[in-house]
Amino acid sequence: MIKHLGKHVNQEIQIEGWLFNKRSSGKIRFVIVRDGSGQVQGVMAKQETDPELFELAGEVTQESSIRVRGFVREEPRAPSGYELTVTGLEVVGGSEDYPITLKKHGVDFLADRRHLWIRGPRQASILRIRSEIEQAIRDFFYQRDFILADSPIITSLAAEGTTNLFEIDYHGEKAYLAQTGQLYSEATAMALGRVYNFGPVFRAEKSKTRRHLLEFWMVEAEMAYCDFEQNLKVQEELVYYIIQRVLERNRLDLNTLKRDISKLEAVTLPFPRLSYTEAVKILQDSGEDFQWGEDFGAPQETLLSDHYESPVFVHRFPADIKAFYMKPDPSESRVVLGADLLASEGYGEIIGGGQRLDELEPLQQRIKEHNLPEEEFAWYTDLRRYGSVPHSGFGLGIERTVAWICGLEHIREAIPFPRMLYRIRP
Amino acid sequence: MIKHLGKHVNQEIQIEGWLFNKRSSGKIRFVIVRDGSGQVQGVMAKQETDPELFELAGEVTQESSIRVRGFVREEPRAPSGYELTVTGLEVVGGSEDYPITLKKHGVDFLADRRHLWIRGPRQASILRIRSEIEQAIRDFFYQRDFILADSPIITSLAAEGTTNLFEIDYHGEKAYLAQTGQLYSEATAMALGRVYNFGPVFRAEKSKTRRHLLEFWMVEAEMAYCDFEQNLKVQEELVYYIIQRVLERNRLDLNTLKRDISKLEAVTLPFPRLSYTEAVKILQDSGEDFQWGEDFGAPQETLLSDHYESPVFVHRFPADIKAFYMKPDPSESRVVLGADLLASEGYGEIIGGGQRLDELEPLQQRIKEHNLPEEEFAWYTDLRRYGSVPHSGFGLGIERTVAWICGLEHIREAIPFPRMLYRIRP
Repeated sequence: MIKHLGKHVNQEIQIEGWLFNKRSSGKIRFVIVRDGSGQVQGVMAKQETDPELFELAGEVTQESSIRVRGFVREEPRAPSGYELTVTGLEVVGGSEDYPITLKKHGVDFLADRRHLWIRGPRQASILRIRSEIEQAIRDFFYQRDFILADSPIITSLAAEGTTNLFEIDYHGEKAYLAQTGQLYSEATAMALGRVYNFGPVFRAEKSKTRRHLLEFWMVEAEMAYCDFEQNLKVQEELVYYIIQRVLERNRLDLNTLKRDISKLEAVTLPFPRLSYTEAVKILQDSGEDFQWGEDFGAPQETLLSDHYESPVFVHRFPADIKAFYMKPDPSESRVVLGADLLASEGYGEIIGGGQRLDELEPLQQRIKEHNLPEEEFAWYTDLRRYGSVPHSGFGLGIERTVAWICGLEHIREAIPFPRMLYRIRP
Repeated sequence: MIKHLGKHVNQEIQIEGWLFNKRSSGKIRFVIVRDGSGQVQGVMAKQETDPELFELAGEVTQESSIRVRGFVREEPRAPSGYELTVTGLEVVGGSEDYPITLKKHGVDFLADRRHLWIRGPRQASILRIRSEIEQAIRDFFYQRDFILADSPIITSLAAEGTTNLFEIDYHGEKAYLAQTGQLYSEATAMALGRVYNFGPVFRAEKSKTRRHLLEFWMVEAEMAYCDFEQNLKVQEELVYYIIQRVLERNRLDLNTLKRDISKLEAVTLPFPRLSYTEAVKILQDSGEDFQWGEDFGAPQETLLSDHYESPVFVHRFPADIKAFYMKPDPSESRVVLGADLLASEGYGEIIGGGQRLDELEPLQQRIKEHNLPEEEFAWYTDLRRYGSVPHSGFGLGIERTVAWICGLEHIREAIPFPRMLYRIRP
């Protein structure tokens, strides 16, 4: 694998990959090979190379699959630090008129060819970073004795109304694709203590923004015997851990993306905390026309996060703009013990979380106020009927986190095959 | 956490959990506490215990949430090896008339209360083992430089016809819930080399058996430059690794399930391999009325696996009973380079996989023969048009693997919230 070339300096090795690009400079030919783990430049000097091989290197086309033999050389000017002196080349599968050339293409053109677009170095780097982030999250929870408890995708529950839900016909019954696994994770937390779920969630939103997908991945943690403050601590440790893992293990990918790494290195623990009420004051002082009780949009989130180098928690939102299951702050009942984490550099909300309402009657009351079907929520209220405990949790959106860490303008690049309002193929 | 009690012998600690059960034996009271990580027995001798505390221990009800203080003692007769001498008890949340008592309940009664049923030691052990298996799988692939590339759930593709697919209305377009992410993983493998996807998949089957769920989890690996034999090797290493992890880290849970551990310890590498044609002969010799060309059902799978202590690969199936993308065996074109892995002890197929058809024209031909919409598969055939390579992969069903390793009779216990033909709640 190209990523392990450093272990084979001055040895002859074989790479199985694809031709990303080639160049010719008089009597030297360069073939740039990718194998999915990275890319490397192979060099052939005409005088020192078998004429047939030199000829073949001139003919092989972009994205042909090739086996390349060669000696690994240290080359400080190469992005990876290594280069290959080519001794052999074999074409496995040809490639004629590969549609994505090295010139600039429009976004729709590329999106229609997402199955090929992902072969390019930028997309491949993003997907490798995404993979590292997902493994980092799982390692984080595993090391802390969380149990992975997968929540169901098909559900009869509509925790926030049915408007934004994809509906399916479940053998004659109406069912929905889950927008969250949280309510189920509250049940598994009462069984297993500390749990998380990590899977796809769905929102049938009509909106088309740089931050929205209709299908995206979310990790949600839920902890029994955990209060609001302890919950924030787990969140900031998780986000910090993710950043350190990527900085440590995806340096080349970050370079490929031309990411300003200093911005990621500037993130430190603990993350700043700001109450909603304080946040409103900051917005108003900045001249924003924003009233207490309103919800933040992207411009407000950007404005707030611009004050900090690390992500910032905004906590204790008005109860009216938050979900029915949030616990009111005992010292100020118009706000709830919930917090959003806003990523730095204007990337907006990446986490929503808080302490859950753990008393039976107030919860039943809220379900009524929200006009939710009481019967469907009977099992959920059971969790407050039998051995209720203070508990808290949060959900982190994967694509927004990937977009932030990679420095992407649009979330569609943060997932292998994005599902957007008018985009279901490939 | 109860699972870490061994680190605190003779120290006073506090457990935050729930009352699983209590017993009284004259002047001694026992409270069995669970906290999600395990359970432990707390002991109170009347003479040595504060009378108020002793009284409270008699009153606390099943599944009340409690904080228990006490000294950790080694106790060889306890399943975990430890016991607690109780010095304090506090009820956090009460629990009246908890519906699942310690007597036997019917399966429907329990399934209706799945949110509570999972609190019992048997279900909790299964879910902890499931969590360990899922992390083991991810660690296995991570250690081998696979990239996790999540495949989409909502898709316009119907790789095996639309009969068994859940349909959704995607803003006016017909779409389906994916039954497999394989075709997408073939695309990501051409971009990233070695990939896997791991998520929920869906089959709208009308069948109601011990082995079927309508929503289940599957991990699918796909490897560029990988042939049929190399693919089998990855599969058997993965399954062996999973078993070793569970044997090493979930011994107490396996004991709770009364699993015959010797059967798991008997699994060794390499796994036996049996061609379909050989398998048919074994079945016929056993008196089964089975003809070459038929597909195996559960009884045949059980009969075959009974010959081995390890899981067994059955390979080179008739092309007619396998998917359109399988590569024909060059030395016998009526069979394909596919293999199923049958778990031992009659647990049936847990893996299906094989080498993929990597030539453009034969693949187009097969798509036509299967009456699949060519246009929808245009991006998939592109993978053979631009730098095609020999590639192989496989998919492992999580719930069947959990059921086998845990020794479960029915797959419904292998997932937190099973979705079956008439079961969508809770």
